[in-house]
Amino acid sequence: MAPKSWLPIAGSSHFSLANIPFGIISTKALPTPRPASIIGAHVIDLQAFAEGGGFSPLAVLKPHIGVFSQPRLNAFAALGRPVHSQVRSYLQQVFSEDGSYPQILRDNSDLKSKVLILATEATTHLPLEIGDYTDFFAGINHAFTVGSLFRGPENALQPNYKHLPVAYHSRASSVVVSGTPVRRPWGQILTAPPSVVPQAPVVAPCRRLDIELELAAFICKSNPIGEPVPVDEAEQSIFDYVLMNDWSARDIQTWEYVPLGPFNAKNFATSISPWVVLPDALEPFATSGIANDTDFATYLKESRELNQYDIRLKVDLTTQKGITTTITETSSKNLIWSFPQMIAHHTFSGCPMRPGDLLGSGTISGTTDSSRGSLLEQNGGGKKLIKLNGGEERKFLEDGDTITIYGVSGEEGALVGFGECSGQVIEARR
Amino acid sequence: MAPKSWLPIAGSSHFSLANIPFGIISTKALPTPRPASIIGAHVIDLQAFAEGGGFSPLAVLKPHIGVFSQPRLNAFAALGRPVHSQVRSYLQQVFSEDGSYPQILRDNSDLKSKVLILATEATTHLPLEIGDYTDFFAGINHAFTVGSLFRGPENALQPNYKHLPVAYHSRASSVVVSGTPVRRPWGQILTAPPSVVPQAPVVAPCRRLDIELELAAFICKSNPIGEPVPVDEAEQSIFDYVLMNDWSARDIQTWEYVPLGPFNAKNFATSISPWVVLPDALEPFATSGIANDTDFATYLKESRELNQYDIRLKVDLTTQKGITTTITETSSKNLIWSFPQMIAHHTFSGCPMRPGDLLGSGTISGTTDSSRGSLLEQNGGGKKLIKLNGGEERKFLEDGDTITIYGVSGEEGALVGFGECSGQVIEARR
Repeated sequence: MAPKSWLPIAGSSHFSLANIPFGIISTKALPTPRPASIIGAHVIDLQAFAEGGGFSPLAVLKPHIGVFSQPRLNAFAALGRPVHSQVRSYLQQVFSEDGSYPQILRDNSDLKSKVLILATEATTHLPLEIGDYTDFFAGINHAFTVGSLFRGPENALQPNYKHLPVAYHSRASSVVVSGTPVRRPWGQILTAPPSVVPQAPVVAPCRRLDIELELAAFICKSNPIGEPVPVDEAEQSIFDYVLMNDWSARDIQTWEYVPLGPFNAKNFATSISPWVVLPDALEPFATSGIANDTDFATYLKESRELNQYDIRLKVDLTTQKGITTTITETSSKNLIWSFPQMIAHHTFSGCPMRPGDLLGSGTISGTTDSSRGSLLEQNGGGKKLIKLNGGEERKFLEDGDTITIYGVSGEEGALVGFGECSGQVIEARR
Repeated sequence: MAPKSWLPIAGSSHFSLANIPFGIISTKALPTPRPASIIGAHVIDLQAFAEGGGFSPLAVLKPHIGVFSQPRLNAFAALGRPVHSQVRSYLQQVFSEDGSYPQILRDNSDLKSKVLILATEATTHLPLEIGDYTDFFAGINHAFTVGSLFRGPENALQPNYKHLPVAYHSRASSVVVSGTPVRRPWGQILTAPPSVVPQAPVVAPCRRLDIELELAAFICKSNPIGEPVPVDEAEQSIFDYVLMNDWSARDIQTWEYVPLGPFNAKNFATSISPWVVLPDALEPFATSGIANDTDFATYLKESRELNQYDIRLKVDLTTQKGITTTITETSSKNLIWSFPQMIAHHTFSGCPMRPGDLLGSGTISGTTDSSRGSLLEQNGGGKKLIKLNGGEERKFLEDGDTITIYGVSGEEGALVGFGECSGQVIEARR
């Protein structure tokens, strides 16, 4: 159980005292974006808290207190994991019923009135300024199912798949925070199978708009160019985790992606959840992932065995009529490569990372229809209809559909969750 | 001819009064990076010039004069092309023998002593903070030659090649300024042809380190997410051009790139030239590129016919012994897609661009051995030896080799050039 708080926290809240995630908020009263945490139904304005001396017992923060007056969390991230840990522990103390610092906030009604904001009155923003965004492909069930659709189960996984965490560089500028509408993209689309050559594409709004359920990590530590991050040190490079929906235009992708990979099929929008959850908060839910039966390279071998997290993931589709269907339930442990392995591989060439770089896991799927993290897998490559509550059916997303991803670990009263990552599809530009 | 300057400018200088490029410098006396221009052998410290009132006749700059006290050119870029044009024209006037502003600098020895710095005494830095970096594949001669090596001439170009500017998202964090050494990357490398399956890769330093000769453009204008940039407006989004060497690890690429494109094979380093050349300066050298015989989509059709530039490009390889061989001479007009077409396609999905985003052209090659912009093309896929002066031979780059790219347009006395884009290969980390 999480320590009990003097602040009322619903047992079902993702933001128990065991969590203490970070984000960026603004309010009507103060439209300047600034760092915050969230506990139960309350947002903690960390700028106001810092300005009011709330962090004064935390000596380590003194020279860096300005990080809480920034419009993004990059400067806070760059302080490094030991500092994040101390800030989280300290905030847990401040909010604990029997914590060591009752005078800091509980008994300071003036500061409390400035710091505590109802979450419903705060607007969330992108938590970090994103440097480079890389999307991996570590969801082996997804890779296998999609590969089977295109090449049959015997050739589903490419020869490199179990030797290295396959990835591509993706687009940072179109990463948006949960709640941002997603406009259906236009693109070049084939009307016959790609095997029909030659054929000219039509130019049209995407007809196969899909989702990709992912977990993502922000980087907090720089490595110089030319200096790889060893796999067993890579955990220190991870600031936090967010939920991600890597919206995908399957028809645009089919035509464009050979030979250099997905481009416009992915760069129109990627949604992330607003509250970033520290590795410390997820540590109790560490577990092993999907075993890799290949004797892969030494630089990818971790001494840590429990290198994934068991986060319960759920995807809801809500139609324009407001009827919701849960289309996916799975666990974030369905990955064959861990984030430290991804970082070790990404930097093995000497590629530099910077605080604010974002790594997506790739689509997370289980092995049953109701646990697959993309519609493409659920509809068998566009062949089957997915039945929704209220009688509607889908192959791919329609205008007005809202996709909401939830992710949470732990038990009632001590949940460590991400809140939600949502986005509504709006019609293509005319 | 360029207007004559009161400042001595060698006729062979890339930085005639017809050019006026921009960059970021620091000096021993003032290590803070700041904006500059370059004319002949002199760097113009634009921060000192602005602080000394040098821009006072230019009313349009008054509210924005702080852009010259920034460590990167992004804020200057974001002012938009009409402002860049006026600043360039004004500086041409200031430095003209018969310009309208002799009192600004020529007759102001105090300001002159602060503003004029010998280029040899200045260190250049990355000109802009790079947001996203996208690499296109618009050099059709390169695409054809490399495609022929892998699939034969009949299938050399993928079916999509002439319908859209093929591209991939690349890595911004490893873009470095000319002069930065390039460390040979490690990676997973196959020892037999990829057709031999299964086989396990070895982990080793890259053995097929290559170059890619490119022209690149920085973006100066934002478009909101969901709002494409029409092709005939896309020129207004281009801040400037630089030379680029997109270093490539061919052996790492062969193993990793299916199905999501190049990753570690490219993300260890990309070099760019330090002085960014405005489209205004290149306008006299506008020409047509390689004709596209495909009836491609309307959103890519430009009304402008002269949509490429004729920049004479040259690549020198200097061995550790200091012996230089020119290995490539070609023209930047060897592209089938223009930068406005690249921007129109990139944003057609709704992808947002921001000032500081970087677009590479893809490898620029002619059709003869001595005009190919990568070693892979020159050596026929690693089969032929390239003869160097002094008796050495190369298939790919060796440690200690320096690659220097030059690019210049126009005639002696009025040259518009980029200076150089160079990098020396240093040995792989042990």
